[in-house]
Amino acid sequence: MAATGREFFTAKTVAEALADFRPAHRTATETVALDDAAGRVPAADILATEALPGFDRSGVDGYAVRAQDTFGASDSIPAYLGLAGSVAMGAAADMPLPAHCAIAVPTGGALPEGADAVVMIEHTQEAMAGSIEVVRPVAPGEGIVRADEDMAPGTAAVPAGAPLRAQDIAVLAALGITALEVHARPAVTILATGDELIAPGAGPVGPGQVRDALSSSVGALVREAGGQPRPPQIISDDPGALDDALGRALDESDVVVICAGSSVGARDETASAVAALPGADIWCHGLAIKPGKPTLLATARGRPIIGLPGNPRSALVVFRLIGMPLVRRAGGCTAPQRAASTLRRLSRDLASAAGRLDVVQVRLSGDAEAEPIFGPSALLSVMTAADGYVIVPDDANGLPAGETVEVFLYR
Amino acid sequence: MAATGREFFTAKTVAEALADFRPAHRTATETVALDDAAGRVPAADILATEALPGFDRSGVDGYAVRAQDTFGASDSIPAYLGLAGSVAMGAAADMPLPAHCAIAVPTGGALPEGADAVVMIEHTQEAMAGSIEVVRPVAPGEGIVRADEDMAPGTAAVPAGAPLRAQDIAVLAALGITALEVHARPAVTILATGDELIAPGAGPVGPGQVRDALSSSVGALVREAGGQPRPPQIISDDPGALDDALGRALDESDVVVICAGSSVGARDETASAVAALPGADIWCHGLAIKPGKPTLLATARGRPIIGLPGNPRSALVVFRLIGMPLVRRAGGCTAPQRAASTLRRLSRDLASAAGRLDVVQVRLSGDAEAEPIFGPSALLSVMTAADGYVIVPDDANGLPAGETVEVFLYR
Repeated sequence: MAATGREFFTAKTVAEALADFRPAHRTATETVALDDAAGRVPAADILATEALPGFDRSGVDGYAVRAQDTFGASDSIPAYLGLAGSVAMGAAADMPLPAHCAIAVPTGGALPEGADAVVMIEHTQEAMAGSIEVVRPVAPGEGIVRADEDMAPGTAAVPAGAPLRAQDIAVLAALGITALEVHARPAVTILATGDELIAPGAGPVGPGQVRDALSSSVGALVREAGGQPRPPQIISDDPGALDDALGRALDESDVVVICAGSSVGARDETASAVAALPGADIWCHGLAIKPGKPTLLATARGRPIIGLPGNPRSALVVFRLIGMPLVRRAGGCTAPQRAASTLRRLSRDLASAAGRLDVVQVRLSGDAEAEPIFGPSALLSVMTAADGYVIVPDDANGLPAGETVEVFLYR
Repeated sequence: MAATGREFFTAKTVAEALADFRPAHRTATETVALDDAAGRVPAADILATEALPGFDRSGVDGYAVRAQDTFGASDSIPAYLGLAGSVAMGAAADMPLPAHCAIAVPTGGALPEGADAVVMIEHTQEAMAGSIEVVRPVAPGEGIVRADEDMAPGTAAVPAGAPLRAQDIAVLAALGITALEVHARPAVTILATGDELIAPGAGPVGPGQVRDALSSSVGALVREAGGQPRPPQIISDDPGALDDALGRALDESDVVVICAGSSVGARDETASAVAALPGADIWCHGLAIKPGKPTLLATARGRPIIGLPGNPRSALVVFRLIGMPLVRRAGGCTAPQRAASTLRRLSRDLASAAGRLDVVQVRLSGDAEAEPIFGPSALLSVMTAADGYVIVPDDANGLPAGETVEVFLYR
């Protein structure tokens, strides 16, 4: 067996990996229907093709008026206006506003020609038939949403590079944009390596065998990051098997993930197979993170290749922190995803070594506490019991009980 | 036109709605494949059918030993052990451990019979051929992951009622559970009402018309909450049209959403149509929230019916706060989703009225500020420009500039 130190010849910090490991490859674009566009990433700014709301409309239930006809109106000296008609929803006013008159208009109704304000119904009283009393003056423009107040033609309705949210979908629908160009979901090949692995659905486990826990779970994180996992593949430790699989993976996918075997020998083989790829560049082999130290980051043909540690829990920690941003980036995201987190008080001391980022699983307890959950990194149950995780930064020698910490939430 | 006050005859607070509006209906269960199970909600606890990892295995690269053979070992007085063989990944050890011997074992390899600890390779040295020197003693159990250390048979691998996360998928895969019973996705009918509405893809807008912005965007939030929106329907303001649509919606769906017209008349019609449903119970008509006051919550046949305000922005605010939890609940979730948020300093004062919860759109600026974005509630662009929102609670008269606030993030 080789000495364990030697594989970490190009160790980097997590911060360096996030800032500097930036493979160039992006997916091509495709057209999707608006109803399938939530979470997808536009390839270019999508411009408003028309004004929103598109016509001057009332912002309140009330009466369209000329503002000057209401100047000076009060409870004691109301302005009397003739009631000339009413506007129906979804139709233009059927007449311009006559002088010294009002036209009833519902919220969202079209403003009649000649009107420049809408008096709220609460500020009016019914007078004799065919007229109303206005008891509060309105300024020109009051009670009105202008034709281009929400959006002017030519402005960017939604920007390139950010996943579409519900409100972005709403604006696109309002503009009548029912199909749009987005980045294709990055295809992600996940290669699970190791002679001990069998597929989750493959009969009873034999002696020394374990079921592949990572293909499905890393696949779930790939989907969460907007990617599309390719069918899982278990690769034996036979010489050449990983080389062949890697070559095919680069042909077929935008991001390649290798769930490395857990032994030093298996990790060395992974590194050798990646290094042997044409044009491969190993960016780091070893990350200053616990758990997750035996992580490999490399590129070939502009595509990121992520070698995850053999322990499933370490692998999931590293894929969340490093892999998901790479999948998002391959899929055209230009801004980092904002983390979902909540502030809590640590229930006990967390030991750590400086120079290494620690990811500690925590349970949320009570109203305000985060309770660390410990256990060997081989145990998945430590992670299924967790509600989130706390990061002890590289430069800290641990965190004291009572300290307020940011808990990044599993959702 | 009716006076606006009268519709709010059963106003409630948002907190009351979240705590007390709890329709009983849940979706039935269905079987899904593990690879499609992320985010789905198990209908019952899923029990471990076997132990994990399933056999005593090494947690390190090293040598399986009897711990007592290493007691007292040090750099100056190493323990000499015969090297009896090695264990291959994915196979049982091919012999029991002979007395005073060691067997090489990789991380994850099966422990040979008779061994009770594994010495890390770093704490050994190669001695003469066929033997090793151990320079650090190990305690019984050290370096080993016990057969049921991660999970014992019969324990709950994942609980009922919570959406499955990547680590839950990993555990299920490790257990060989490749199909599972989950709640069906709640079918959600979204009825957009109003004579002014046309479908987003329906030709040019005529005078006074607007495109339906809510069916697609509320649909996106329904999907985010684990539901399945049914095909959108635009309902005219004709008497009877909404009654018919509501009756059909209750037959076909688990949650019904009505995007009410924006005028008082349209809102009154919505309330009347809901009240006329057999067995309908109007729980509230009017919520103490801004924007979103004209919200209606009702049940019929145990199913929630949510009448959203006519303004698209108000509707999206209310659907996020009130509608998404109802969809989750109909889909079997028993715990509230934890909000994704971040703490920021308010860049300016926020005015508010006590007795009402205010939802204020904010942009994240700089490192630490939240900058409120204002504008009429009819404007969607205020929400597309926002990164999240701040809640001014019912009991506050606003929040001062500089105050640290929780920003709930749009993602």
